[in-house]
Amino acid sequence: MIVAALVRSGARADVATVQAQWLVEADLKGQSSHGVARLPVLVGRVRAGVLTPNAEPVMTWRSDGVLAVDGARGFGPVVASRALALAVVRARRVGIVLVAISNANHLGILSPYVENVAAQGMVALAFTTSEALVHPWGGRDAMVGTNPVAMGVPAQPSPFVLDMATGQVSMGRIIHHDQTGQALEPGWAIDAHGHPTTDASAAREGAITPFGGPKGFALGLAFEVLVGSLTQSALGRDVHGTLDVTEVCNKGDVFVVIDPAVVTGTAGNLDVSRYLESVRATPPTPESGGVRIPGDRAMKDKDRRRREGLDLSTVSWGAALELAGMTTSEADAASNGASS
Amino acid sequence: MIVAALVRSGARADVATVQAQWLVEADLKGQSSHGVARLPVLVGRVRAGVLTPNAEPVMTWRSDGVLAVDGARGFGPVVASRALALAVVRARRVGIVLVAISNANHLGILSPYVENVAAQGMVALAFTTSEALVHPWGGRDAMVGTNPVAMGVPAQPSPFVLDMATGQVSMGRIIHHDQTGQALEPGWAIDAHGHPTTDASAAREGAITPFGGPKGFALGLAFEVLVGSLTQSALGRDVHGTLDVTEVCNKGDVFVVIDPAVVTGTAGNLDVSRYLESVRATPPTPESGGVRIPGDRAMKDKDRRRREGLDLSTVSWGAALELAGMTTSEADAASNGASS
Repeated sequence: MIVAALVRSGARADVATVQAQWLVEADLKGQSSHGVARLPVLVGRVRAGVLTPNAEPVMTWRSDGVLAVDGARGFGPVVASRALALAVVRARRVGIVLVAISNANHLGILSPYVENVAAQGMVALAFTTSEALVHPWGGRDAMVGTNPVAMGVPAQPSPFVLDMATGQVSMGRIIHHDQTGQALEPGWAIDAHGHPTTDASAAREGAITPFGGPKGFALGLAFEVLVGSLTQSALGRDVHGTLDVTEVCNKGDVFVVIDPAVVTGTAGNLDVSRYLESVRATPPTPESGGVRIPGDRAMKDKDRRRREGLDLSTVSWGAALELAGMTTSEADAASNGASS
Repeated sequence: MIVAALVRSGARADVATVQAQWLVEADLKGQSSHGVARLPVLVGRVRAGVLTPNAEPVMTWRSDGVLAVDGARGFGPVVASRALALAVVRARRVGIVLVAISNANHLGILSPYVENVAAQGMVALAFTTSEALVHPWGGRDAMVGTNPVAMGVPAQPSPFVLDMATGQVSMGRIIHHDQTGQALEPGWAIDAHGHPTTDASAAREGAITPFGGPKGFALGLAFEVLVGSLTQSALGRDVHGTLDVTEVCNKGDVFVVIDPAVVTGTAGNLDVSRYLESVRATPPTPESGGVRIPGDRAMKDKDRRRREGLDLSTVSWGAALELAGMTTSEADAASNGASS
């Protein structure tokens, strides 16, 4: 159904399938701000001519270990998955590969990229920038993206997967709180005058607070200049096209893929799996329900939702139906699940 | 004087000079937990035979872009500086280089490594592990190092330099609070039962809290398994030799050096410098004194202390004198500054 909506907008079935998978994966993992709710923006961008659905990305090996990618305005997940497939093959020989992507659309959630690479026995780092929504520590205006970082490391029974933004919260969540009349948690955002606020409507006029105070701000800023330096992409308030339906997307994306077998000369580090188990087994503090490591909750959510089905908001589903030009019964007949 | 103390313990003058520079640089930048106060531990480690002062590190190119380094129990700054010098030369040709170091001693502060690389026009990332001092989010025991991350990005008038630990605070600072009878700030640490505490003595029996809640914990843990996977180093509570004077140091260190000129095909990204200026110029919130970006304070502190002189604690200075086998007047005669 999501695929149908993308195909109807002009995408080939193969690229529509990849983009749809990324949206559904986000909803499955509980990151609904990057889920099917984004479909109308993507279709809107195609219609406006700022997203070229069947783009042919230009991949250039600048050296044995450096892949520069011009995304040609294509779907982010399509461009990045193709580039990473090349990078994994190359990393087996050269040990470390850098992928620097410009001119691609929003990547969606980062975890599937690093998870896929880690499942192939390799370490992956991912950085991407976004429109300026986060204020500097001590500053009043949004100057930094919510710049997420992701990391995948091979482990048993499943790879270690980190995927986190450097803002306290996503703008999607603030908007959702505003629409449902909920107060924000203290520390999430400031208003247009720079005062901390729990009023979601005031926060939409202000900026998101970086996570972790000055250190979190420092990290988000570091990722912004790292990606900017390696992709020549726009920075700060000049970044557009990740949320709107009018501007060409000018942010950048950086991946590093490393084959530990080349680096260490051995097949893998089983100690990592044992160590992660010991961290999970740390005795809990009196106030907590136990220790969770990155990726555990997302994986559990995904398993549960796969069994029980996805609970997409009525708005997302209705919009998707409309974009696909289908009625509810046609959609039911056409698919057995949200991802088809 | 610090050099003299290291030479007296058996180090050659050249390696003693590099190690001394790293200690003094930390004090100059206000990171006294990594400063001259560490000299007695270093000398103690040499005397105990767990640090080989004149070690010859073994550097092996596993591929064109992967340098594996066996530090042979040498001083951390000596091993890492030599490896990075090779990496910078190589990165000009291959674009990206990974340096994976095992069997070296404590690196000291990370900022000089990435700052030096960035001053040569390259991007640098640095990760290192340390003894388990930080508790998992929701867990009671120290299971993760204070695992710092550093990043250097070329910019004008000086490189962008991030250097931060993933704990709220260093154990050195907690010990200092304990010795001077000061209370900790709320949120810095937990006691042995897992309760948040502001009692420095109780915190020494407990664990440091990760910065930024679950996200900061996630990052510190990610760096632990990243470094472990790429260096086959010890993990968590098995890490020793960064604070004690009895154990061989078995943590690992990872650097990534990237030449943006290879990646982008252009000489540099001036926009980064302009962007950083605009972030500094963000209008301040009503409560703040303005926006500082990473490295600004350290650089300012360093300039001031270079003019006014270093204010080392009496304990550090006395210990250094004793280790050098000098009196105060001999030390004054031998040097015009703390770094000689």
